[in-house]
Amino acid sequence: MKYILTISIAIASLGSAFAAPTVRDEPIQPIQPAKVENPAKVELGKKLWFEPRLSMSGIISCNTCHNLSRGGTDNLKTSIGHGWKAGPVNSPTVLNSSLAIAQFWDGRAANLQEQAAGPIQADIEMNMPHTLALDVLQSIPGYVAEFKGVFGKEQIDMDMVTSAIAAFEETLVTPNSRFDKWLKGDDKALDAKELAGYTLFKESGCVACHNGPAAGGTSFQRMGLVEPYQSTSPAEGRSAVTGVDADRFNFKVPTLRNVEMTYPYFHDGEAATLEEAVDIMGRLQLGRTYNDDEIGKIVAFLKTMTGDQPQLTMPILPPSSNATPRPDPFQ
Amino acid sequence: MKYILTISIAIASLGSAFAAPTVRDEPIQPIQPAKVENPAKVELGKKLWFEPRLSMSGIISCNTCHNLSRGGTDNLKTSIGHGWKAGPVNSPTVLNSSLAIAQFWDGRAANLQEQAAGPIQADIEMNMPHTLALDVLQSIPGYVAEFKGVFGKEQIDMDMVTSAIAAFEETLVTPNSRFDKWLKGDDKALDAKELAGYTLFKESGCVACHNGPAAGGTSFQRMGLVEPYQSTSPAEGRSAVTGVDADRFNFKVPTLRNVEMTYPYFHDGEAATLEEAVDIMGRLQLGRTYNDDEIGKIVAFLKTMTGDQPQLTMPILPPSSNATPRPDPFQ
Repeated sequence: MKYILTISIAIASLGSAFAAPTVRDEPIQPIQPAKVENPAKVELGKKLWFEPRLSMSGIISCNTCHNLSRGGTDNLKTSIGHGWKAGPVNSPTVLNSSLAIAQFWDGRAANLQEQAAGPIQADIEMNMPHTLALDVLQSIPGYVAEFKGVFGKEQIDMDMVTSAIAAFEETLVTPNSRFDKWLKGDDKALDAKELAGYTLFKESGCVACHNGPAAGGTSFQRMGLVEPYQSTSPAEGRSAVTGVDADRFNFKVPTLRNVEMTYPYFHDGEAATLEEAVDIMGRLQLGRTYNDDEIGKIVAFLKTMTGDQPQLTMPILPPSSNATPRPDPFQ
Repeated sequence: MKYILTISIAIASLGSAFAAPTVRDEPIQPIQPAKVENPAKVELGKKLWFEPRLSMSGIISCNTCHNLSRGGTDNLKTSIGHGWKAGPVNSPTVLNSSLAIAQFWDGRAANLQEQAAGPIQADIEMNMPHTLALDVLQSIPGYVAEFKGVFGKEQIDMDMVTSAIAAFEETLVTPNSRFDKWLKGDDKALDAKELAGYTLFKESGCVACHNGPAAGGTSFQRMGLVEPYQSTSPAEGRSAVTGVDADRFNFKVPTLRNVEMTYPYFHDGEAATLEEAVDIMGRLQLGRTYNDDEIGKIVAFLKTMTGDQPQLTMPILPPSSNATPRPDPFQ
């Protein structure tokens, strides 16, 4: 009996090994390519992603602050929205966001679909009441036909809108970074400095938070664990959602995928460079002061996590009809 | 001798007829597809077209007001620029703009390259001094390499920037509209109503101004020729360039290509619909009041001039370096 059990375990191990024979056992796993199950829905979601008519001004779309030409961010400390208002926190990248446990820095949206509803109506972002957004879409024959094709209904609702946007966002993953090639067994994908950077990153404890395929997004953590973080940002983090004082300054750990492109860093965007961000993280989160050589190695490693950016054909948006409510930038 | 001359003329005529045997002899000619002579320069120009770092705020690019998902316009009466300032005139479409005699509504730029320099530094548009724009580009290794590949120089200058943008813009033509198919001899490309609309458009005199491949862009004309045009717009038109009082309210005739997508209409964007625009044009420019049936026919014809929109893969913009001057939205 003991003999049989041992053989079974050995076979199970072998099976597991054969399933992914060359992926290294590391706290960060390779990004998987997107599987598109409903191309028509993704295509509709792409149009909505680039659709400025979802904003009161007629010029702000999802892509304004999560620019897919720029790592899915706007590269500003905090974003500019309707009426040139500044947002309270840094726009996180949309790339690989489907891999996160929740959405927004404070995790107040459980998933991408729930997230997508927020910025459309937020007065400092797109400032568009959902009812008016739906009136706009319903007045555009091209959209009515496309929503019907995807959802089988004439009447467009917000669930359909956000579900299509989320379906598009789920395709925005960035596989095939050099680090992923190394994870899959290609020893030459990283040079000695980059590998030393990864070893230091791992051994000094960064992976406690920056783990999983996105190298982040798997937990909420206090910003300023060892030393307090000094910030003028009004953002209080997770406590705004849970109401629990112990959650103050707890933020979702950001992904480090494509981090070379997603500057500036932290929830307040106050770290302008990767070097600055690594230095601050070391001191505040790990109680460790990295020297310049160590910072250089970690930064070299971080830059190997830039993956294939989504190759997108710009959508051609269907024209408004005479009945379409017109934008009002100065409302 | 006379005999030989006659034969030569006959052969020349035949040659001409054979060169384009099926194109109808009409005041509007088909749009020709773009010929790309220098793909690397066009690709660089595309990156610059989508480059928000050419603006002080870091969020406004050429594509913000000339959105290639929306017929090359922003579909606003007048555009919103730096600091949420409103511009004085409607943003004209970039599509087929290479076919115009000059650029801007008042023709103050002789060509696309000259035009491209304007909005970058205009304080109500991108608000970016050229010197700073060049400092930004020069600090980005990806751009330095790409400019060197195209222009053979390490030092980037504004001529290189605007020349690359213009090269990209020259590719933004929209051939193969249904009207073009009809022009090339396909009788079934237009239905009876559309053809009646074109006949009315031609016979009532619209083609006096809206002619050539772009159905416009070939001349400057007074807005309000028969009756004065009432507008609160400060724009004075061509006189601002020539200093000649007789040129007041003379504007470049806009193209009617893709006019279904380029609403609202006129230099002040005050005509919200095509029906309104046709009615006003008839009365003010031709002294003719079209009835609803006539307006419907002309609008049906105008909508046949929507051509193939440029199919563009969104560029991935090279990341800033630590030395890159950061945007300042509130400057």
